[in-house]
Amino acid sequence: MAGGGAAASALSSPWRALLQRALDANAHLKHSTFFQLATVSGGGRPANRTVVFRGFLEHCDKIQINTDARSNKISEIKEWPLGEICWYFTDSWEQFRISGIIDVIDGSSLDPAKLQLREKAWFASSVKSRSQYLGPCPGLPVANDDHIKDVHVDASAGPVDAYCLLTLDPEKVDYVNLKSNQRLMFRRAQEGDESSDWMAEKVSP
Amino acid sequence: MAGGGAAASALSSPWRALLQRALDANAHLKHSTFFQLATVSGGGRPANRTVVFRGFLEHCDKIQINTDARSNKISEIKEWPLGEICWYFTDSWEQFRISGIIDVIDGSSLDPAKLQLREKAWFASSVKSRSQYLGPCPGLPVANDDHIKDVHVDASAGPVDAYCLLTLDPEKVDYVNLKSNQRLMFRRAQEGDESSDWMAEKVSP
Repeated sequence: MAGGGAAASALSSPWRALLQRALDANAHLKHSTFFQLATVSGGGRPANRTVVFRGFLEHCDKIQINTDARSNKISEIKEWPLGEICWYFTDSWEQFRISGIIDVIDGSSLDPAKLQLREKAWFASSVKSRSQYLGPCPGLPVANDDHIKDVHVDASAGPVDAYCLLTLDPEKVDYVNLKSNQRLMFRRAQEGDESSDWMAEKVSP
Repeated sequence: MAGGGAAASALSSPWRALLQRALDANAHLKHSTFFQLATVSGGGRPANRTVVFRGFLEHCDKIQINTDARSNKISEIKEWPLGEICWYFTDSWEQFRISGIIDVIDGSSLDPAKLQLREKAWFASSVKSRSQYLGPCPGLPVANDDHIKDVHVDASAGPVDAYCLLTLDPEKVDYVNLKSNQRLMFRRAQEGDESSDWMAEKVSP
């Protein structure tokens, strides 16, 4: 299956059509945009957590995820930037396992284009969603319940320090449909080449 | 929070009550017993897939998972037996991240007690579920669609070679409730000690 050039690739990546169909078929479920992101933390320990799909970057297949720059996973991913998404659609019984390299884009990035992506993703989030980055540092012990104060977010203000955009650049997509009992394996022909084509193979489920 | 001895620990592990409550609250959803298991494969690559909760081993907190001994993950887990379950309950908005050590119990086990557990788990599965272990090797290319033959399983026959039981022995449980915005971190006081107590701490979400 061929795509030509970055823009065509983004439009023609063969698994994208399957994923869009699954998103449409499960759109009535709030959790249809939730998936589990696995990474490897210190000492080679697997780490796994639910995150929210924030769409693709324009003109490519990179998957956007919002996260808190103060969470453990940020330093872990900077150290070892491999990830595998497991995205199970509960109504259509489809699973996408999407593995690739994760880019951490926090406020310390020196790349103006990346900082612009981060700002764009910040403003694409709801004001309520942005307010969580003004709360206490995730994972720290709390002594009592009165630590959660109402925080005010200025809707026109840019991203706060704690806001971090992750992008995962897919290299392999393992798709299985448990209703039709079909499984397809997609591999990017050349790793690291954004404009490369994808190979698809039918494998046993 | 103290438990005394293995049996008491299994009954009193503080996160077990939360998990049972979540299972009850989401029992009307078929997918409530599905979770994502992350492991680390060759080259330190994270791997993540949906599997089905098959209950706890008796008198302890070990979580049972059925799998195909021919799948890639078996050799990977034997090599590096760490896993993290991410279990998101879509109706009650609760997440359990359960990390621990995985034991692979296939037909080659030399431990009669483990082989007995495997046999028990085999017969606890439906006959339909058992039949998948008689199908073609998962992940291998298929040339056409007519490879899936009806397979006959003798309901009284013991486990086939391809059937493998995994057990995950929890060491840490990170619980978050997105409705109440509460997060609790449970750690086993002494790793590797089945009878050890659990420590619980409230942390910020």
